[in-house]
Amino acid sequence: MEFVAAPARLSTTDARFEHDFAQRLHWSADTDAAIEQRVADILADVQKRGDAAVLEYTARFDGLSAESMGALELTQAELKAAFDSLPVAEREALESAARRVRSYHEAQKKANGESWSYRDEDGTLLGQKVTPLDRVGIYVPGGKAAYPSSVLMNAIPAQVAGVGDIIMVVPTPQGAKNPLVLAAAYVAGVHRAFTIGGAQAVAALAYGTATIPKVDKITGPGNAYVASAKKRVFGMVGIDMIAGPSEILVLADGTTPPEWVAMDLFSQAEHDELAQSILLCPDAAYIDAVQREIDRLLPEMPRKAIIAKSLSDRGALILTKDIEEACAISNRIAPEHLEVSSRDPHKWEPLLKHAGAIFLGAYTSESLGDYCAGPNHVLPTSGTARFSSPLGVYDFQKRSSLIEVSEAGAQILGKTAAVLAYGEGLQGHARAAEMRLK
Amino acid sequence: MEFVAAPARLSTTDARFEHDFAQRLHWSADTDAAIEQRVADILADVQKRGDAAVLEYTARFDGLSAESMGALELTQAELKAAFDSLPVAEREALESAARRVRSYHEAQKKANGESWSYRDEDGTLLGQKVTPLDRVGIYVPGGKAAYPSSVLMNAIPAQVAGVGDIIMVVPTPQGAKNPLVLAAAYVAGVHRAFTIGGAQAVAALAYGTATIPKVDKITGPGNAYVASAKKRVFGMVGIDMIAGPSEILVLADGTTPPEWVAMDLFSQAEHDELAQSILLCPDAAYIDAVQREIDRLLPEMPRKAIIAKSLSDRGALILTKDIEEACAISNRIAPEHLEVSSRDPHKWEPLLKHAGAIFLGAYTSESLGDYCAGPNHVLPTSGTARFSSPLGVYDFQKRSSLIEVSEAGAQILGKTAAVLAYGEGLQGHARAAEMRLK
Repeated sequence: MEFVAAPARLSTTDARFEHDFAQRLHWSADTDAAIEQRVADILADVQKRGDAAVLEYTARFDGLSAESMGALELTQAELKAAFDSLPVAEREALESAARRVRSYHEAQKKANGESWSYRDEDGTLLGQKVTPLDRVGIYVPGGKAAYPSSVLMNAIPAQVAGVGDIIMVVPTPQGAKNPLVLAAAYVAGVHRAFTIGGAQAVAALAYGTATIPKVDKITGPGNAYVASAKKRVFGMVGIDMIAGPSEILVLADGTTPPEWVAMDLFSQAEHDELAQSILLCPDAAYIDAVQREIDRLLPEMPRKAIIAKSLSDRGALILTKDIEEACAISNRIAPEHLEVSSRDPHKWEPLLKHAGAIFLGAYTSESLGDYCAGPNHVLPTSGTARFSSPLGVYDFQKRSSLIEVSEAGAQILGKTAAVLAYGEGLQGHARAAEMRLK
Repeated sequence: MEFVAAPARLSTTDARFEHDFAQRLHWSADTDAAIEQRVADILADVQKRGDAAVLEYTARFDGLSAESMGALELTQAELKAAFDSLPVAEREALESAARRVRSYHEAQKKANGESWSYRDEDGTLLGQKVTPLDRVGIYVPGGKAAYPSSVLMNAIPAQVAGVGDIIMVVPTPQGAKNPLVLAAAYVAGVHRAFTIGGAQAVAALAYGTATIPKVDKITGPGNAYVASAKKRVFGMVGIDMIAGPSEILVLADGTTPPEWVAMDLFSQAEHDELAQSILLCPDAAYIDAVQREIDRLLPEMPRKAIIAKSLSDRGALILTKDIEEACAISNRIAPEHLEVSSRDPHKWEPLLKHAGAIFLGAYTSESLGDYCAGPNHVLPTSGTARFSSPLGVYDFQKRSSLIEVSEAGAQILGKTAAVLAYGEGLQGHARAAEMRLK
């Protein structure tokens, strides 16, 4: 069977551009009422019956039966054995990736994640204490989309933050364990791991059971059931963002070999049919060259069926007036991954306001960032880069404000506080401030 | 009518302590299915009909009729006029509070909110660019609980972050405007303000209407309808935490005048009947003294009915073995406000892991922090300080990872990435990395 990858060809000078562009971008995470109801039932059941409920759902949904939850725990010895069983090249690649990811997140903590304080002119101490979360749960998808790199990207920032207990859950349908995933848990320093998944795993982490400890936050991607469960327990525990389909936007000045750009577009499209790959470029001849490379390279790709459908349904090659306009369009999209494939990437970077990760220059393929450059690959999707950030050490820390008012400071602040408190009708607040006045 | 404030008297050495303690702490934000359905309907209607729907709901729920949404916008002149109309003491208190809150948040941005990058040994650039959100919506409750201080605490961090458009919504039931709220919006630098509220205001901000601009994030407290609406639009826009009842925990060594502590407990209890005030102290005689001050001071308080009910239903005076044990119990509670009412607060502060804000020393009454010390008064409640933080500049910023791999770096990283990508069955990712190899 022959596949054709035909991304939409758009031009910003075309009268229909706004219409066609909006249509390409449209994606809605429609909530499925049936899924929501089933998830609500599973959560309530796990909250009530604990381990017994988790065991039943694991048998029913994952085809994995066990006598007790204890039997579904992966021991540290089992994680290490999985690591030892890997070919040398995979072991080294995992360790090298983990080292670089750790080193980046250590720099991140040092730059933006340390406690701070100062004293003002009254001698009042003001600041914030930054502390790690006590215990977090990391959801790792099993089955088809089991990605060891996701284990590293979730567990290492938690470890660098100083989280005391990192609990991994990973479904193993029919008991099939992915040795790379187990090895990654070993390398990343996961403290405990259970072969459970779905809404029942999210519930077990959020409420705790006799065997699974209750966590403070749950991170990691999952299917619609997992996403719905995370959204439902949000507030009782912390969660990271709910991820939509993956996206890449390549902003090209026409100086990168077009086959590199074609393959970068493939590397996003191969994730799934809803993934989105977009090229923005002011050079029509270059866009033609990229399309020729797409046509030439597609037949070689093992995942060509997915790539062809993703590019044809959701992909776009967009001709812009100039690179400034391309940057403005990129800001409207707020892509998860943004490649600035240019000889002069630092000229354009300041114009780029919204993106999960910005890859500068032709050598920085998005796939290097996915695995081992160091920055996190868990990134905001579907335009949420407008208001949210890559997963990071900060997601595994929280802050407590520190205030120490001196006797002298209380004389000044007390008067201001009392006026405002009386203005709000809160006399207890006012009196508490006034009692400290001499 | 006489009111009695009888907080529970507990002792950690009592056999029933764990049971009684758990019962006091129990609070559940039960979701009301009827409210959820009405909110879902309102959101869908505003998404479909825009301004017309918002106008209808504002007339129905707030008793405020207007011809057009434009008529519900507060002009900058109107905000300034409200400020000018205030007594001098209130004007000065608002300005002084705003100045201190701004200065604290500027320090916060400088300490933890600046872009950073470094080059590793291969010449690869790694870092994060920190940028402000483009546009945020601030929800300010109207009616009974209209707090001008909340306007400052939400708008100033957004302004310090560099948010371009700060849109305030505040319901004005029957058209009654609170001049202190309007004046606070003027002082805080709110860009636009509309007299709308409820789920319809959240919907208008999340989806945008012909008149109300679509925002990237919505912060600020509200009633059950507002909370439900915020939770429902979460993901499409950012939101801050959903707030529960306010709480104070006073950890006392017995050296603070007991009337100060009694008034500090009142200042939380007076917020509403569900608010929680707890004292932890190893000195039984001191606890008795605080109870005597509670009895003595209560009749003077205008909000004595609320205070009595809150303290009797949810308050507790807990005798602990020592201060170390009090710190451990405080960590289990993870209170919103934590006063360390001790001569030696810095001795205990390192033991305190989970709290929204920590007030050190007898002079630091919680009410100073509520209004004008500088730190934010929007704090995590109901134990969520285990995983979340005070509202801050960071809530109005987001991060984009920066990666620039050199040609030399791509030779090393490309091999690692290719091994892991093939291991995950993602050949496009592997090929994109390999194409950059010489």
